[in-house]
Amino acid sequence: MTFPVVGMVGGGQLARMTHEAGIPLGLKFKLLSDTPQDSAAQVVADVVVGDYRDLDTLRAFAQGCDVITFDHEHVPTEHLRALEAEGIPVRPGPDALVHAQDKGVMRARLDAIGVPCPRHRIVADPADVVRFAAEGDGFPVVLKTVRGGYDGKGVWVVETAEEAAEPFRAGVPVLAEEKVDFVRELAANVVRSPHGQAVTYPVVESIQVGGVCDTVIAPAPDLPEELSLQAQELALTVAEELGVVGHLAVELFQTRDGRILVNELAMRPHNSGHWTQDGAVTSQFANHVRAVLDLPLGDPRPRAPWTVMANVLGGDYPDMYAAYLHCMARDPQLKIHMYGKDVKPGRKVGHVTVYGDDLAEVRERARHAADYLRGTITE
Amino acid sequence: MTFPVVGMVGGGQLARMTHEAGIPLGLKFKLLSDTPQDSAAQVVADVVVGDYRDLDTLRAFAQGCDVITFDHEHVPTEHLRALEAEGIPVRPGPDALVHAQDKGVMRARLDAIGVPCPRHRIVADPADVVRFAAEGDGFPVVLKTVRGGYDGKGVWVVETAEEAAEPFRAGVPVLAEEKVDFVRELAANVVRSPHGQAVTYPVVESIQVGGVCDTVIAPAPDLPEELSLQAQELALTVAEELGVVGHLAVELFQTRDGRILVNELAMRPHNSGHWTQDGAVTSQFANHVRAVLDLPLGDPRPRAPWTVMANVLGGDYPDMYAAYLHCMARDPQLKIHMYGKDVKPGRKVGHVTVYGDDLAEVRERARHAADYLRGTITE
Repeated sequence: MTFPVVGMVGGGQLARMTHEAGIPLGLKFKLLSDTPQDSAAQVVADVVVGDYRDLDTLRAFAQGCDVITFDHEHVPTEHLRALEAEGIPVRPGPDALVHAQDKGVMRARLDAIGVPCPRHRIVADPADVVRFAAEGDGFPVVLKTVRGGYDGKGVWVVETAEEAAEPFRAGVPVLAEEKVDFVRELAANVVRSPHGQAVTYPVVESIQVGGVCDTVIAPAPDLPEELSLQAQELALTVAEELGVVGHLAVELFQTRDGRILVNELAMRPHNSGHWTQDGAVTSQFANHVRAVLDLPLGDPRPRAPWTVMANVLGGDYPDMYAAYLHCMARDPQLKIHMYGKDVKPGRKVGHVTVYGDDLAEVRERARHAADYLRGTITE
Repeated sequence: MTFPVVGMVGGGQLARMTHEAGIPLGLKFKLLSDTPQDSAAQVVADVVVGDYRDLDTLRAFAQGCDVITFDHEHVPTEHLRALEAEGIPVRPGPDALVHAQDKGVMRARLDAIGVPCPRHRIVADPADVVRFAAEGDGFPVVLKTVRGGYDGKGVWVVETAEEAAEPFRAGVPVLAEEKVDFVRELAANVVRSPHGQAVTYPVVESIQVGGVCDTVIAPAPDLPEELSLQAQELALTVAEELGVVGHLAVELFQTRDGRILVNELAMRPHNSGHWTQDGAVTSQFANHVRAVLDLPLGDPRPRAPWTVMANVLGGDYPDMYAAYLHCMARDPQLKIHMYGKDVKPGRKVGHVTVYGDDLAEVRERARHAADYLRGTITE
């Protein structure tokens, strides 16, 4: 085999950073992007602009690709099955990916394999939400459309039957879940290859603000060894049982009573793994690429005692480049990762990482840089 | 200022890896490449194919670039002066770069600022080479064309007047140098920005085989602190006195009698600095980009006690990708960097790096991977 062509569907920052990680391996990278201005399209040589919802576009794109992988979960499952039936390696395959596309399918499967989840069931209408609440500890209840949500979109926390009307308007099945009394959110990230090798990253703490990931701390501070192992084993089980290929992020709740419950699954590089670019021997992006090509996986271990990643959200100041001067001069070890996206308030436009021996100091440095880049502080 | 456009002249592996390092900074990267198949052209979105020896091509390329920098030293100095006169920031500028382009100019300038060099002078013809030999310890004498050489090309070690005829055939001025009785070769690499900030990487040992860099050990083992400091100060002096902007590699001889002499200068990322991609907080590529944009420089310190880089040369086996399976499975910490070049015997097609605590072990792992990828060993 000569150097393979990796076909990436989706032109967001995950594709951009996967391309970056693939360059050293000498891979050829082909991108299917919505527009020529997408984050990844700005930095990739071989870009096809087209609609991932169109099967013929996907078919034409797949010509000449040795494997197809994804920046997002939005490609229709039936299209992936069609590509696979035509002999195109799709990784993760549709039988795995559907669990990251459809929260109803995901919950049913996790129940079947004995993976602990919040109490949940599909609900028919607002009256059914009231019944679901009554079956447990009452309101509030979390409602999610089974498809199409991300970063807090497609998720509602409701207190009454009236508030429960909104999620049903899209005509998509709605999943009800108990509102978990959690201490914090964790993520257990693993990478699995087709022949079954798997590696496990340290369990991280993920701090959300307004439903959007804000800060990730690797490893999760003060996490009992037992819970850490349980979370890692759980992620490995999910990866194996669901036949995941590539990076799997398992978002978890750590409950007040010391349990671990699965919140969400993502089968691609994930925000909770960005810290690995600078903080681990092998990044999630490099290992995702290695996995989809069925190459042996790289060492997932951390390179420093602590690594903190902070997302850079768009603020009121459009020119983040101007902030580089201060941030780089203040902290010569700071790692900046920008996505080439226009700044819009609240939009994820980049992230920073800082690593070191002292968690409080590392965290302060990452926080400062993210805030300064956003423009919420000016010194 | 919005995110700047960095114009890179030359499509080789240094441009490829500089692009890779620029992606996280959100920079726009524009490439002037000889062909669409060049190493960097395979991975860059915005590629202009053209001849860097043509001033109009350079002028057209420079439109829309905020700064111009280089993958190699071969752009005619007068073209760079023309671009600069037209207001285009050229970094390093022609007044600095000429010292990396013309070995005669370089030697004269280093003499003038008191930097120790091998005994040398421009020689007129073979008879003059005999006189040069007689002025010192006799033959052998090293002859170099003042322009156009690299990786052992344009360099001859001669023992007689007859052997000295060849270098004069090109009609380029010839520089004669004593053949230094060196213990080993070192490199002192620094990065300097237009406003004068400079950072210094640890001095490395560079092991050449057949005139081509084979292995780099960072830091140089058993180098006395005094010599290390002397080498670093020397490199900083050269960078400042010559007005270098960007990465400066100072290739050095460590002589048997304990002196440091300058062999060559390169004003761009350099093979002796490839170890920094995985072994330093900030790579030479990232710092080169930061310097040419006059951004504050990143921390140059090593992340591990030892980092070893071994070049991967083309061998008899054209399919290096097949070797990934064994290399990655044997060493999950191995870092492979391939350049997307066709394999030709002796051609630099990639490099590997390994870092760790035990130099002998780290060196064996790098050696094994480079040899296995080349095909000179099969287990």
